[in-house]
Amino acid sequence: MSVAQSERLGGLAVARTVAALRAHVAAWHESGESVALVPTMGALHAGHLALVARARECCPLVVASLFVNPTQFGPAEDFSRYPRDEAADAAKLAAAGCDLLFAPGVAEMYPAGFATTVEPGPIAERLCGPFRPGHFRAVATIVAKLLLQIRPEIACFGEKDYQQLQVIRRIVRDLDIPVRIEGVPTVREADGLALSSRNAYLSPEERRIAPALHRALAAVGERVRRDGVAPAAAAAEGRAALLRAGFAKIDYLEICDAESLAPLERLDRPARVLAAAHLGKTRLIDNLTLLPE
Amino acid sequence: MSVAQSERLGGLAVARTVAALRAHVAAWHESGESVALVPTMGALHAGHLALVARARECCPLVVASLFVNPTQFGPAEDFSRYPRDEAADAAKLAAAGCDLLFAPGVAEMYPAGFATTVEPGPIAERLCGPFRPGHFRAVATIVAKLLLQIRPEIACFGEKDYQQLQVIRRIVRDLDIPVRIEGVPTVREADGLALSSRNAYLSPEERRIAPALHRALAAVGERVRRDGVAPAAAAAEGRAALLRAGFAKIDYLEICDAESLAPLERLDRPARVLAAAHLGKTRLIDNLTLLPE
Repeated sequence: MSVAQSERLGGLAVARTVAALRAHVAAWHESGESVALVPTMGALHAGHLALVARARECCPLVVASLFVNPTQFGPAEDFSRYPRDEAADAAKLAAAGCDLLFAPGVAEMYPAGFATTVEPGPIAERLCGPFRPGHFRAVATIVAKLLLQIRPEIACFGEKDYQQLQVIRRIVRDLDIPVRIEGVPTVREADGLALSSRNAYLSPEERRIAPALHRALAAVGERVRRDGVAPAAAAAEGRAALLRAGFAKIDYLEICDAESLAPLERLDRPARVLAAAHLGKTRLIDNLTLLPE
Repeated sequence: MSVAQSERLGGLAVARTVAALRAHVAAWHESGESVALVPTMGALHAGHLALVARARECCPLVVASLFVNPTQFGPAEDFSRYPRDEAADAAKLAAAGCDLLFAPGVAEMYPAGFATTVEPGPIAERLCGPFRPGHFRAVATIVAKLLLQIRPEIACFGEKDYQQLQVIRRIVRDLDIPVRIEGVPTVREADGLALSSRNAYLSPEERRIAPALHRALAAVGERVRRDGVAPAAAAAEGRAALLRAGFAKIDYLEICDAESLAPLERLDRPARVLAAAHLGKTRLIDNLTLLPE
């Protein structure tokens, strides 16, 4: 399938199959151009567009993928109501300078007989792991597939999903997938709330409370770095602040080794503070660096 | 690292690191040459050399890997006594027309922090699966790594390890690893015994008994194809024949779907008869096609 023959959406060439995708990318690689990948589940916001911008800084050609991966949603999660607007997403990607959209159907990614999974090991069992059983296995599997289908030189992931980013770094290193993983800083609203497709679920009252998550993480960082409070004590203060602000339930708020995500007792290496908490029916996550890498 | 600088063994260039390996292969790919991989655990015999011969038919350049993968041996298995003679293996590979030997150490394949596994799903849980817990996961993981380290166009595996071959086909298809998997027919002694590095463990008396495994599989095939005996009944006859011949214990002798390895009740699709049985302290496996694909 040549570029000229392929489907276009919102001004962007779209590949629906791995074969069409590979035809595009092979032509690019043959002409010596390097390719960056921005994997998404659609519902694009400025955070995704920052990934595209970073991808364009790294490589002359940028592929975005749009696949709402059913296997990474739990049975009680929001797969069916996850926001979908492919045409609007394609228009945003075209405007941001993306060169190709890979938007496969579920049967293209998981044909009959599909059975393999990529297991990231202990890093997937921490933080969000116990609250979303099988989630990171599913993410690792679909990202491995995308990386091997597209074979980009670079792939960009947001630091907003920091555990996901570290899981992907782990499996790429361990399986020797030939790609460089770029972590891109979280894009925030003016009041500090991290951009997320799931923010659309928040009621006006919940939206008013939501920035308390970022404020609590920033405060925990200050308590540890400036005041020398022990990580466990500072994290407990942060959890109390979230409950006071109106969060209904806290899955975790922890200070972790920035690479392995193992819990830290002292700030003696690159560290990150990460949290997941519920506001009404919406689960929000966020994280900040404490001691940069 | 240039070819000229690299270590040589038995007349063959040897790469000990992924970086050195990739430098070789990148130079080949840049000159437009395709590459075939023959993964081995050393202790090479004519079966391995048939893989190299097939690889040479497919591609102008052939890489063999030699890595006795510790993770695929169970605690009671023969990892420590598995036969090793790297210099002899390198000489055989050079004589067979191999272009590069990749012989990494354990720390190169599994650096500190290594944690990812590739899980092949139900196909790994059948036949040898219950008798070698974790074996196929370990095989799938190391083969995925080799394929992504080397990025060959073709990789050759023996039909002798038929379940392994189908596991590898499964994970390559599912993860979209860009390689063609070539299954190569089993090489046998004149009396029918499948060549195996583990045949070296057999006493003279056991060696005399061992071809009964191949004879039993062939007889089961005849009973099903020629006499119309049901697969389950023919397999029971085959197991009885192995015990009469002097095999101490039979792990399984089954007729299976040639792709999924699910048990077959009728010979209504491509089928394979597979067995694993113990002769003294040595576990032998073998298989034959019943209805070709």
